[in-house]
Amino acid sequence: MSAPALGEAAKPGPKLDFWFDFASTYSYLSALRIDKLAADAGVEIVWRPFLLGPIFKAQGWDTSPFNLYPAKGRYMIRDISRIAEARGHVFHMPSTFPAASLKAARLALACPDQSVRARFSKAVFEAEFGSGADIASADVLAAAARSAGLDFPLLSDRSASDEIKAALRLETETAQKLELFGAPTFLTRRGEIFWGDDRLESAILWARAELSNYSP
Amino acid sequence: MSAPALGEAAKPGPKLDFWFDFASTYSYLSALRIDKLAADAGVEIVWRPFLLGPIFKAQGWDTSPFNLYPAKGRYMIRDISRIAEARGHVFHMPSTFPAASLKAARLALACPDQSVRARFSKAVFEAEFGSGADIASADVLAAAARSAGLDFPLLSDRSASDEIKAALRLETETAQKLELFGAPTFLTRRGEIFWGDDRLESAILWARAELSNYSP
Repeated sequence: MSAPALGEAAKPGPKLDFWFDFASTYSYLSALRIDKLAADAGVEIVWRPFLLGPIFKAQGWDTSPFNLYPAKGRYMIRDISRIAEARGHVFHMPSTFPAASLKAARLALACPDQSVRARFSKAVFEAEFGSGADIASADVLAAAARSAGLDFPLLSDRSASDEIKAALRLETETAQKLELFGAPTFLTRRGEIFWGDDRLESAILWARAELSNYSP
Repeated sequence: MSAPALGEAAKPGPKLDFWFDFASTYSYLSALRIDKLAADAGVEIVWRPFLLGPIFKAQGWDTSPFNLYPAKGRYMIRDISRIAEARGHVFHMPSTFPAASLKAARLALACPDQSVRARFSKAVFEAEFGSGADIASADVLAAAARSAGLDFPLLSDRSASDEIKAALRLETETAQKLELFGAPTFLTRRGEIFWGDDRLESAILWARAELSNYSP
């Protein structure tokens, strides 16, 4: 512990990156609770949508491991149902799984700031796993955008721009370079990786401890 | 809730099956803490060693997923190291991973009762992941048996019997029929499955609630 330096008050607070894919069932569980948990701990969350598809492909999978390994898939549904119920949420598997999450990810990246992105992302997750809707559908995404107070045609136009397309490709490449292999994944500023909704509390504590134990 | 019936005092208490493979890193974490957690909750633990190898083979894997997917393997080591440290334990990956766990599993099944089996199993896990020893070695297993207060030559003879060999095959087949796909897995009397050391607390609570909510 060093003594407070001049300008200490302006030091940025702890941050945690929340890497998620809109098709990921366990990301739904985290999306519903991460902002509250992080705010209570004084940690800022950066919502980072990416695509797991290319990462799964690189390890030889052409779909979700929950489809490739049906026993694991059946367990996942039971596991999430129990957890969601204990937290007062509902969980419905959408009829198409995994959903094509490209459009939703681009829309989330096109949101003007983190707070809007968080609101929109939660609305998408709730439509998908709270109501079982198919988030590949423009109607479903439009309703999610509206419920988050967004102008969907405007957001949709921006999400189709080369800038946003490139941004999503870059995020997915970054996830690959970071060796992320699933979602949700939480990444601290010093590179500590936590995988899975069940590691969220630990990740938040780590992000906070990291900052207070480290003097650059 | 029904009123206490005659003979209620003799009703068996809640039980939870602890399915584990001696080569499983996350099973080590559970082995070190399950007896204390369960005793505090009034739940009886049944230690059930089995072999994950045949289950992995059936889904096309010829080794541990942590070897097949190296990024996941590197993450697992970091994840367990953090958790072990927070719980006051050490964690060393053995140089051979996954260990050939057949002999250890047979020895555990050959133990005269659950309490001895638990003691022996913990000693094996501690040699393997606390000290990085190779549990395929008879010397390592003999030392574990001695530290658990067991006569190793006697236990070793019994473990090589047809009865014990058949018992381990049957346990592994039972695990397959139950659709277990990893370890540790906790199974309640009414068939609720919990996978992973991070589900241990939930499994214990469920086993207890199940019994008190269910009148046969």
